[in-house]
Amino acid sequence: MTSRLITIVAGVGGGTGASIARKFSAKYPVVLLARKPENYESIAADINASGGKAIGISADVSDAASLQRAVEAIKQEFGADVGAAAAIFNASGGFMRKPFLDVSPDVFQSSLNVSAMGGILFSQSVLPLLLKGVELKSEHPPSLIFTGATASVKSSAQMSSFSTGKWALRALSQSLAREFGPQGVHVAHAVIDGVIDTPRTKEWLKDMPAEAKLSADGIANDYWWLHTQPKTNFTWEIDLRPAVEKW
Amino acid sequence: MTSRLITIVAGVGGGTGASIARKFSAKYPVVLLARKPENYESIAADINASGGKAIGISADVSDAASLQRAVEAIKQEFGADVGAAAAIFNASGGFMRKPFLDVSPDVFQSSLNVSAMGGILFSQSVLPLLLKGVELKSEHPPSLIFTGATASVKSSAQMSSFSTGKWALRALSQSLAREFGPQGVHVAHAVIDGVIDTPRTKEWLKDMPAEAKLSADGIANDYWWLHTQPKTNFTWEIDLRPAVEKW
Amino acid sequence: MTSRLITIVAGVGGGTGASIARKFSAKYPVVLLARKPENYESIAADINASGGKAIGISADVSDAASLQRAVEAIKQEFGADVGAAAAIFNASGGFMRKPFLDVSPDVFQSSLNVSAMGGILFSQSVLPLLLKGVELKSEHPPSLIFTGATASVKSSAQMSSFSTGKWALRALSQSLAREFGPQGVHVAHAVIDGVIDTPRTKEWLKDMPAEAKLSADGIANDYWWLHTQPKTNFTWEIDLRPAVEKW
Amino acid sequence: MTSRLITIVAGVGGGTGASIARKFSAKYPVVLLARKPENYESIAADINASGGKAIGISADVSDAASLQRAVEAIKQEFGADVGAAAAIFNASGGFMRKPFLDVSPDVFQSSLNVSAMGGILFSQSVLPLLLKGVELKSEHPPSLIFTGATASVKSSAQMSSFSTGKWALRALSQSLAREFGPQGVHVAHAVIDGVIDTPRTKEWLKDMPAEAKLSADGIANDYWWLHTQPKTNFTWEIDLRPAVEKW
Repeated sequence: MTSRLITIVAGVGGGTGASIARKFSAKYPVVLLARKPENYESIAADINASGGKAIGISADVSDAASLQRAVEAIKQEFGADVGAAAAIFNASGGFMRKPFLDVSPDVFQSSLNVSAMGGILFSQSVLPLLLKGVELKSEHPPSLIFTGATASVKSSAQMSSFSTGKWALRALSQSLAREFGPQGVHVAHAVIDGVIDTPRTKEWLKDMPAEAKLSADGIANDYWWLHTQPKTNFTWEIDLRPAVEKW
Repeated sequence: MTSRLITIVAGVGGGTGASIARKFSAKYPVVLLARKPENYESIAADINASGGKAIGISADVSDAASLQRAVEAIKQEFGADVGAAAAIFNASGGFMRKPFLDVSPDVFQSSLNVSAMGGILFSQSVLPLLLKGVELKSEHPPSLIFTGATASVKSSAQMSSFSTGKWALRALSQSLAREFGPQGVHVAHAVIDGVIDTPRTKEWLKDMPAEAKLSADGIANDYWWLHTQPKTNFTWEIDLRPAVEKW
Repeated sequence: MTSRLITIVAGVGGGTGASIARKFSAKYPVVLLARKPENYESIAADINASGGKAIGISADVSDAASLQRAVEAIKQEFGADVGAAAAIFNASGGFMRKPFLDVSPDVFQSSLNVSAMGGILFSQSVLPLLLKGVELKSEHPPSLIFTGATASVKSSAQMSSFSTGKWALRALSQSLAREFGPQGVHVAHAVIDGVIDTPRTKEWLKDMPAEAKLSADGIANDYWWLHTQPKTNFTWEIDLRPAVEKW
Repeated sequence: MTSRLITIVAGVGGGTGASIARKFSAKYPVVLLARKPENYESIAADINASGGKAIGISADVSDAASLQRAVEAIKQEFGADVGAAAAIFNASGGFMRKPFLDVSPDVFQSSLNVSAMGGILFSQSVLPLLLKGVELKSEHPPSLIFTGATASVKSSAQMSSFSTGKWALRALSQSLAREFGPQGVHVAHAVIDGVIDTPRTKEWLKDMPAEAKLSADGIANDYWWLHTQPKTNFTWEIDLRPAVEKW
């Protein structure tokens, strides 16, 4: 027999996706999506070694066919009637902080491809599984959670190659929350308003206290909290930031 | 010996304040503030009967002297060095939904007195206790939480006697979050976007499913979640609403 | 015979109110409201000397009886059937930028008295005159315009004695826009996001180019533009700021 | 000798682009961009017949090479040192209001191609001309204006194929306003919050008064007003809606 309710996490290259996957693996088998196996292999191994279950699938969220193959692989693994208890979109397109006229159209396009189209295509791929999770009477309402950033709510100078995609993603989240909430799926958006403490940011903010960075495990806890909210009390958006940050 | 970390809840007349008090009483002695003893007596009795500790104090949040007497009564009960782990402002001024020119200035004034000045005076009264909670190394960052409403973010026609006070309260929350976060106090605002299921609203929305109202206990869970966030991951604002509501 | 359509400006002490009064005096007799005669006398004299018509009335916008007397004085002067083509609320309560716990409750109260209750009482006093303006077929839709500030949309640390009142005023404007727009009155709010160039701010930002301050006459032009919008194209809110300001 | 300051309008198929072009043609030669000649030919003819000057250029705003050819054609016509006094982006991608899972990825992609990438590519094409307009000491600060919609600020159920692109465009506008304001270019965004009265919408809202639709000429007046604001008083965003609309 196969597990019937899973969690899918897209974008597990950095520390946040890994923390989220580990957190949700305590209750659900977890599917890790990333473009390259090196981005999910060690996380999957970790989870499997700790008594959870995780599989990685190479997929490009900006490519509908690639996502379709991922969904087929999921059904192969977990059964055709598999449902999703949670799906988390944690991917972001690359961007450049520099004068607008110095940024190549390619940079804007690839940022939109991941943050905007990627969010759309991922949602179209996982919502049928989340609706199946409703049917399967998932203990907690099936949840679709999007990772946003400061640039999801503020569009600073020289940051439009990031903010255009992130604003589009936030619009997607709000529209889906309105459409799928009444169908039992909890759609939420998290505005991560600061630097996350990951291997990549180890050298950042070195003159600040350790608490100046967001904890990736803390973010995972917050996503888990969103997931456990009952149908009477859905949160559509949370912001998260370190206490010491200056505004 | 007296308990050194308490929770203070202002506005416990309806079901929400009672749920919050019960939730926080699992860890902290709770002080209930309301204008009239009948608004806190049965909740306090309940909590005390279930193995928690609660005291009620008659206080008017729109009156600085009344709040000062309440703080003195708290110190009398719990010791002069008492700190607060949490303080929740759940009071609202009365208002009238009718044409603007038909609303008496008194209604606007009394709404502002509670929602705006009440929030300010309550914060000035409890922040020294919350800062004392930081000093006492409260396990979770001491938290100041404000209850908002749909009218905190949208100001509908004929609703200005409610929204003016609620917008002022949200402004207060954002300013305090910026000032006191770096000092270790977590300030947060909750936009309660729907009807809460309480004895008073029993007859409302009767043609809708039971899940069409917010759960008061669910709100209390969410406030507790806010309270347990670590200093690296503070949320300043959450919205809460039933999945089935139409927008 | 008396003029039947007038403009009323509350808060004419600084340079902005004076600029607004002068601008609107090109078409309408202007009533200037301020607490002290020295705040309106020279502006009124100026306008009367330049071929316009202006009268000043001592009034306290936070006092309903004082505003009622002002309305009676207006009817005495312009006839009982006078209508208003425009009413501009340009008053602000005093505030203090300092740590929250060091600000006296009186400061918060007096700020709310002017910015929040003042806006409410002023609106209740002038809306009957503006509705009369609709009846009198004012060429441009009668307009009620509120002057806001950066603190109307952002509530910074240590600024809550200003922002609480300003957020309340913005809530008022949005509610009135929804209620009175369909009745033919154009309600709008202006977010003045910077320092206005007035005698009082002459020494500010001296290390910046002259264009770093907002022009008071420019603001008056923008209010006039709002006033001339037809019923098909109402703007509820504009922001105004100098091009060179840094964000 | 050639004209040295022009206005460029992208998206002139509906009534709004035509109204804007006519308004700005009173002062500047106007360049009309649309994919198909039938979308600009009659407007250009109209303007040229009324004593103004207009040329149409076939261009696809979602195609960088097509826009580059348009800029070359502009320089051919008006001289290599031509500057722009105004550039208006009035194009929108197609969209479908239907359940999210029933909308083809192609619809989302083509909406993002025009509203998001189109806005980006248009801005990269015209900003050098607008900066040249600053150098040429344009009487009014050169202006880059984006046409938004209700869906630029609210993302309703089943509307994400429109809102994702429109939110991205608004993000672009805010970022460019911050970057190019200090360089003398006025960037602004207009939230058109209602149905515009054009030939295409003639049969809409027939049970409502004539004033229930926005006037396209009114929008053009408002854009002209934005264009004439001095550097001390820039508005970044206006909303526009009919007085009678219900909210």
